[in-house]
Amino acid sequence: MNRFEPNLRIPGPTSLPDAVREAGARQMVNHRGPEFAVLQNRVIDRLKAFYKTQNDVLIVTAAGTGGLESAIVSFLSPGDKILAVTIGAFGDRFAKIATVYGADVTKLAFEWGKAADPAKARDALRAGGPWKAVLLTQNETSTAITNPIEELAKIVREVAPEALILVDAISGLGAVPFETDAWGLDVVVSGSQKAWMVAPGLSFVSVSPRAWKAAAVARMPKFYFDLAAHKTSAESGQTPWTPAVAVMFQLDVALEMMEQEGLEEIWKRHAAVGAAVRAGLTALGFKLLADSAFASDTVTGAWIPEDLDWKAFNGKLRKLGLIVAGGQGNLKGKIFRIGHLGHVTVPAILNAMAVLEQTLIELGRPVTPGAAVEAAQVAALKSLGLAK
Amino acid sequence: MNRFEPNLRIPGPTSLPDAVREAGARQMVNHRGPEFAVLQNRVIDRLKAFYKTQNDVLIVTAAGTGGLESAIVSFLSPGDKILAVTIGAFGDRFAKIATVYGADVTKLAFEWGKAADPAKARDALRAGGPWKAVLLTQNETSTAITNPIEELAKIVREVAPEALILVDAISGLGAVPFETDAWGLDVVVSGSQKAWMVAPGLSFVSVSPRAWKAAAVARMPKFYFDLAAHKTSAESGQTPWTPAVAVMFQLDVALEMMEQEGLEEIWKRHAAVGAAVRAGLTALGFKLLADSAFASDTVTGAWIPEDLDWKAFNGKLRKLGLIVAGGQGNLKGKIFRIGHLGHVTVPAILNAMAVLEQTLIELGRPVTPGAAVEAAQVAALKSLGLAK
Repeated sequence: MNRFEPNLRIPGPTSLPDAVREAGARQMVNHRGPEFAVLQNRVIDRLKAFYKTQNDVLIVTAAGTGGLESAIVSFLSPGDKILAVTIGAFGDRFAKIATVYGADVTKLAFEWGKAADPAKARDALRAGGPWKAVLLTQNETSTAITNPIEELAKIVREVAPEALILVDAISGLGAVPFETDAWGLDVVVSGSQKAWMVAPGLSFVSVSPRAWKAAAVARMPKFYFDLAAHKTSAESGQTPWTPAVAVMFQLDVALEMMEQEGLEEIWKRHAAVGAAVRAGLTALGFKLLADSAFASDTVTGAWIPEDLDWKAFNGKLRKLGLIVAGGQGNLKGKIFRIGHLGHVTVPAILNAMAVLEQTLIELGRPVTPGAAVEAAQVAALKSLGLAK
Repeated sequence: MNRFEPNLRIPGPTSLPDAVREAGARQMVNHRGPEFAVLQNRVIDRLKAFYKTQNDVLIVTAAGTGGLESAIVSFLSPGDKILAVTIGAFGDRFAKIATVYGADVTKLAFEWGKAADPAKARDALRAGGPWKAVLLTQNETSTAITNPIEELAKIVREVAPEALILVDAISGLGAVPFETDAWGLDVVVSGSQKAWMVAPGLSFVSVSPRAWKAAAVARMPKFYFDLAAHKTSAESGQTPWTPAVAVMFQLDVALEMMEQEGLEEIWKRHAAVGAAVRAGLTALGFKLLADSAFASDTVTGAWIPEDLDWKAFNGKLRKLGLIVAGGQGNLKGKIFRIGHLGHVTVPAILNAMAVLEQTLIELGRPVTPGAAVEAAQVAALKSLGLAK
């Protein structure tokens, strides 16, 4: 195994391609000068293409959670009725932010490991309201589930046509199929350290005309996360507060790489690595957390067997160069997660499976040598249409 | 003149030393893993030494303005009486954040270019209250003034002993003399792209026990900028939201360089470059904005003569490799500013003076060749005790 370059398999920050890393070492420029304006305009244009939107896309210097906060405080007022559809820790977080700022939040929570059920969402929408906004999670990082956003959004438009649809797409957008405009999504949040293959520090938020209309009368207190201020500054190629310039340099390079690969190819690659991880873990005897119909192609969660000493297991993985993530919230200590988004290839997944396999064998567990690697490779090839 | 490596003379982002730049190109690590915890603990210990504090120091992934917002929302409640002492655009911004979140803000504003007058601050404190907090700006970047914080803080303690003293030290801390604990400052905010010679993206906030007591009952809404959440996470070497990892790598290297240089030496260097800039600009015939008794050693503002075409002038400066900043707020179009903080040496200032001198000569203005460079060098040497 490669002990010198750890295989960073957490659901963000993802490892960075060399060209992206190196852009982080560039010398600073004046963030109010012409070079930065050109850079930001180019980055925003490319983000729009990946968002598949004609809406504004704004860049906020913050972690993804800051992007979620900007999506709440820029468009809503205290007392607004909000339906928060949550399937895990990040859905809960989105709901919590709205609650903290005084929204009247109704939570529609689904069992962790399941996707949101559109029929139940319809019932919940009908049972309450009038809804000012609906909060959705595209890809729930804590449970490794990708929600059927298109279907959910359709139901919102049907039952509550005026409601804003605010989507946490932090850990999925740019990696798996997503259509901001075709699905009618008003506000969509993502983050640099996920599919975008860039260091953390920037969050992206798309904003529809309907959302801007809401912004004009929104009364939640806001300053740093005021997206209207970001829009005003973006019009002259700036940001209202000093941006994370080095991360912008990296983003510019990463978006060019993504453009060269092509969005459809990126989606195919993620489908292949997702299939590979699920097949490999299953071959190793792990039980997956996620409902297989909605399994995420950017992150996979597996239950830790009760007779497996997690600390010893994870220590061995680390020693062999594999870095995985633990569980979050209710799942802390119960699952581990493997990230497979952004700068990820099938061989990187095979490396992870090889380390897991060797570790389990070292721990004396009944694992067939080579089986996980083979299963992962076959699943990837099938996903790519290269095997039956 | 050097046309290949621009002399970035804006008051942040500052240019980065090579070793700091290069750290921005490192591969990502798990922000919940042991490597990051060691890094963050080391960085925080070093920040405390530069803050001269035993208080907690927390790291927030945001621009300095986000740090200011965290200082307001973490400790205050709507309706709290706040005295905002402002001497420029950033003092106004600090006051505005408190107002937006519902504080009852009394502004004590001084003429731009002047420091806050302690006697007037005493009068204002006596005339109102009871004060929950007093907002102070250590170094007002928009007007190039360093306030007498020690004196102002003493007066707050005398008149309103229980009031929290919240200080915007974003553009001065780490460059000019500052004593968090000896001056009794409760919350002190700084930012990575200033004296710390690091890319933007991180803000630092020190918090006194008195401020933590206030945090326990503070009712302003907050989520991302909740410093209590940052404290809880910091106790296990983490951050509540994904941190700007690459900027942390740079900060670690920069703080080691700063430690090697030594705080007193850093202060002396900034005093020398400050004196050099003021002497050079004066020799070139510019009138300085700042009251000379309180002139900042990190940034200098000069009035643009009415008969000088700023766009042509600035275009020529840029062509010769000198990047300066314009004015902010009321001073937009009226002044330009030269930053001299962080990664700055006397030779870098002499380069800037040489470009200014050549440009003015090209524009046909009556400037004695060599005079500004000489004046700057002499002032620097005097400041260092090497000339009379």
